[in-house]
Amino acid sequence: MAKKVLIIGAVALGPKVACRLRRLDPDAEITLIDRDNIISYGGCGIPYYVGGDINDIEDLYKTTAHMVRDEEFFLSCKGIKVMTRVEALEIDRNNKRVRVSFLDNNKDGYLEYDKLVMATGARAVRPPIVGVDLENVFTVSDLHEAEKIKGLMAQGKVGKAVVIGAGAIGLEITEALTDLWGIQTSLIEMEDQVLPTLLGKCMARVTAKELEKNGVELLLEQKVLAIKKAEEGGLLVETTAKTLSVDIVVLAAGVRPSTSLAKEAGISIGMSGGILVDRRMRTSDPDIYAGGDCVELRNLVSGENMMMALGSLANRQGRIIADNISGGQSNFKGTVGTFCIKVFGLGASKAGLTYRQAKETGFDPVYAVVSQADHAHFYPSSELIYITLLADRKTRKVLGIEAVGKNGDAVKSRVDTVAVLLSHGVTVDEICSLETAYAPPFASAMDVVNNAANALDNVLAGRNVPIDAADFLQEFSHSDIQVLDVRGEKEAAPFIEKYGARWLNIPQNQLRGKIRQIPPDRDYFIICDTGPRSYEAQILLNANAVTRTRNVQGGLAMIRVTDPDFV
Amino acid sequence: MAKKVLIIGAVALGPKVACRLRRLDPDAEITLIDRDNIISYGGCGIPYYVGGDINDIEDLYKTTAHMVRDEEFFLSCKGIKVMTRVEALEIDRNNKRVRVSFLDNNKDGYLEYDKLVMATGARAVRPPIVGVDLENVFTVSDLHEAEKIKGLMAQGKVGKAVVIGAGAIGLEITEALTDLWGIQTSLIEMEDQVLPTLLGKCMARVTAKELEKNGVELLLEQKVLAIKKAEEGGLLVETTAKTLSVDIVVLAAGVRPSTSLAKEAGISIGMSGGILVDRRMRTSDPDIYAGGDCVELRNLVSGENMMMALGSLANRQGRIIADNISGGQSNFKGTVGTFCIKVFGLGASKAGLTYRQAKETGFDPVYAVVSQADHAHFYPSSELIYITLLADRKTRKVLGIEAVGKNGDAVKSRVDTVAVLLSHGVTVDEICSLETAYAPPFASAMDVVNNAANALDNVLAGRNVPIDAADFLQEFSHSDIQVLDVRGEKEAAPFIEKYGARWLNIPQNQLRGKIRQIPPDRDYFIICDTGPRSYEAQILLNANAVTRTRNVQGGLAMIRVTDPDFV
Repeated sequence: MAKKVLIIGAVALGPKVACRLRRLDPDAEITLIDRDNIISYGGCGIPYYVGGDINDIEDLYKTTAHMVRDEEFFLSCKGIKVMTRVEALEIDRNNKRVRVSFLDNNKDGYLEYDKLVMATGARAVRPPIVGVDLENVFTVSDLHEAEKIKGLMAQGKVGKAVVIGAGAIGLEITEALTDLWGIQTSLIEMEDQVLPTLLGKCMARVTAKELEKNGVELLLEQKVLAIKKAEEGGLLVETTAKTLSVDIVVLAAGVRPSTSLAKEAGISIGMSGGILVDRRMRTSDPDIYAGGDCVELRNLVSGENMMMALGSLANRQGRIIADNISGGQSNFKGTVGTFCIKVFGLGASKAGLTYRQAKETGFDPVYAVVSQADHAHFYPSSELIYITLLADRKTRKVLGIEAVGKNGDAVKSRVDTVAVLLSHGVTVDEICSLETAYAPPFASAMDVVNNAANALDNVLAGRNVPIDAADFLQEFSHSDIQVLDVRGEKEAAPFIEKYGARWLNIPQNQLRGKIRQIPPDRDYFIICDTGPRSYEAQILLNANAVTRTRNVQGGLAMIRVTDPDFV
Repeated sequence: MAKKVLIIGAVALGPKVACRLRRLDPDAEITLIDRDNIISYGGCGIPYYVGGDINDIEDLYKTTAHMVRDEEFFLSCKGIKVMTRVEALEIDRNNKRVRVSFLDNNKDGYLEYDKLVMATGARAVRPPIVGVDLENVFTVSDLHEAEKIKGLMAQGKVGKAVVIGAGAIGLEITEALTDLWGIQTSLIEMEDQVLPTLLGKCMARVTAKELEKNGVELLLEQKVLAIKKAEEGGLLVETTAKTLSVDIVVLAAGVRPSTSLAKEAGISIGMSGGILVDRRMRTSDPDIYAGGDCVELRNLVSGENMMMALGSLANRQGRIIADNISGGQSNFKGTVGTFCIKVFGLGASKAGLTYRQAKETGFDPVYAVVSQADHAHFYPSSELIYITLLADRKTRKVLGIEAVGKNGDAVKSRVDTVAVLLSHGVTVDEICSLETAYAPPFASAMDVVNNAANALDNVLAGRNVPIDAADFLQEFSHSDIQVLDVRGEKEAAPFIEKYGARWLNIPQNQLRGKIRQIPPDRDYFIICDTGPRSYEAQILLNANAVTRTRNVQGGLAMIRVTDPDFV
């Protein structure tokens, strides 16, 4: 008899399971249900639809061949029965059936299964703030809300906006509002940086500057106290910093896995709040699989379970669930938290853990920051790329990598090459010699990712005693520590003019001869353009008894994107 | 006593060893010799200097901070003694000294060493053709020849050119001559494809079309018989195809490692003709290291030793040699042959083995070809990328990956993520779930590299019975096999008009209903736009007794770039 497979949820993972399973098993009775009427859409594309990069909302649920993925499409092209506006109310595990509500006629009924797949996704968190339910307070987790936001903007009804939460979706929607529509946007974040779970402080600072450069008002370490209706129309957003008068508010305070159906059926929930699954994506009930935004995944670097709501992971898991339902043996090992984002003219990306996360997990993390061109420095298309590479001091295992730069494809590329090795327990030494493709239009002979590892190797060996740009800016303004600038006289001149005696300039080619002129009983920040010369100077000084030095990682290039006012 | 380190060759590896060693050991007596007067230059940048992307030749031997890397620079900035115009004549291993000739005054002398590093590089092969020594027959292996070519072009003396050899350098110099200078260039290659050791036939065909599209005359499977002086000035190049009248000839017939010095000193040479080194980059004499283009490397996929002349590998090896000379324990395991190239508007890249190489090595290679957008298909910046993924049938180990596409950074990115895993013995299954960074501006939710593995998994399982674009074009023109086009009627119409009854069109959404109309006792090529629908159709037909089908891999998108005249 044909196997009955019921799938709850038809956005990303659900359709993937269904289509793959149909190809593996022409006879299975596959039914896909969803409470919404729009299905199988690219939810990650919502900010780009709102922002105008994508004009037609249908583009988010069309195939590459421009067919709309609706019930008819799934039936005729894929041989899969889809029922929309059907909500799952209860899983009756004893009788292997799901009680559902047919939303269009308010009737209830049962759907039977041999194997059940839960693809219930995640919901946007509505923080417990007075006023979050007011009109014109939106989330961006579904297409309907996105359409409303875009509709208001298209009618010219939005001049100012507040976005609450500087995570990935918050940043994407902030860009969408600001970039094309010219909406004056304030972005509010409780933590002391943007992308707090996704980037370390150095790369987050660069990303924050990119937002500000593009006119976004960034309010870090601030809370929203209340949202109120303004008398003159619009909304008042009271924050710990100030009160903002705006037309719309977008909540981007994260998502929470939709697990109530599972919980009520007695299916195990994991430590981080998602449905617990094994490597084959089976829940605690072996006839019930789950995947996508509603499950928790093993973080393959920290070893802890975590949530990682990403369409890319959902798709990979969907294929694995289908394999296993059809009798195969496919495994999903977990995630290393690989991520990328476009923020105006910047691409940012990371994999593994940030410094803070590594500390919390119990590692002894050490990091290096480098600035270097993505292509050969002499090749015209080259752009600077900034990388943080993080490793455990004792084991030398790489724990994470972060990168930002103008060329997003190149940024992602560097992170990806390390990301795919993280679960193999790669060491710093392997990254020093990492063999990636080289030609001057696309890379340097010693690529930036190799040099990030080389720098980290030198830091671990104690040869490179570094300070990062954020700490340098902090310490420079709160102390009288002197800077030793080893660039040429011309480059250093404006800094000497600005910072006076605190800015000592000895060009690298004169340093050997002038080393006796440097008082050894003082502290110095050594700096150059991107870092290699200051590192070399540090070694030379150290060999000549000038030992109280710190090398500014990534040099002035890094300072420039961290605090444009400094240079 | 300070360690005496003598380094022969000051282009890429030599300076790297010297500089790293100086940082590790402030006391070592480091001497770098070279017979040329220009040193420490980016040889890989020569085609871009010739082509005009780089205007000033000095840019190839300047640092990122615009300092010229000459003897003075190495002495004052790096603390390293460089002697140019000094040729090594003989290694006297017993007395640990090298006999050298001071070319500027024709005197001989000896330089002593505790550790010797051979960075003698490779020389361009001058094929045994009558006339290769004539005036205006050049190689592109050094800056002096590059200057001469550019000088002639700048004087307007070059209207037509022949390039001999369609390897990487041949293609790069062909583009350089054609693109900016508008020189009518003919590229001659003995093998039946461009980049014969670097790409399989599918990706090579796409690359060849890009050359032809840009006006290059490509003569494959042809030999040059002789080069002669023309009576009216210029050169006559007699080939097996025709005689070409040109102004310059550029030899790009590969490079050969410079090993005579090593050989004469009794140092072991490997099977592939390069100096044999161990993982620490030591030659058969433990006091002599070698690296860069003069050594052979272990191919970590085939297990065989091979030559891989690339500045990127030389740099990585240089760091390792310095570590070991200073008492460290660094290893260079080998190479997986990672490569990339810009060919006009196309980026091409590969890692591992091609189909042909895998066969020759004794594997049973199986491959899949896919066409897919590099970014989310709905995102405006997306461009198609074409990938070949190759695995061993029995072990499912990935043997190689090749990619081409307009966005070279994205192409390189996909190859790099697989490249870095090749030496870990990665299987197809791991690539199916490979976790790379995802956001619509930079990738698809199921990235092209995942889908390449998914397709290969299906081919290995026998679910996907494929034919590649090159074979399809061949068989279509030499048989009467029918095409089943499962795209929409509008898309298929021009093909039906062109190919008549051979082009059967049943759109995917009608296929289930019309399956009985398809005679099962015939052969079919199933085709769609990029491949997924034709694969799905193949499965459906197979379940309905229409079994003599082959799925055209990469679909019409792949056909379009393989033979634009077909579509």
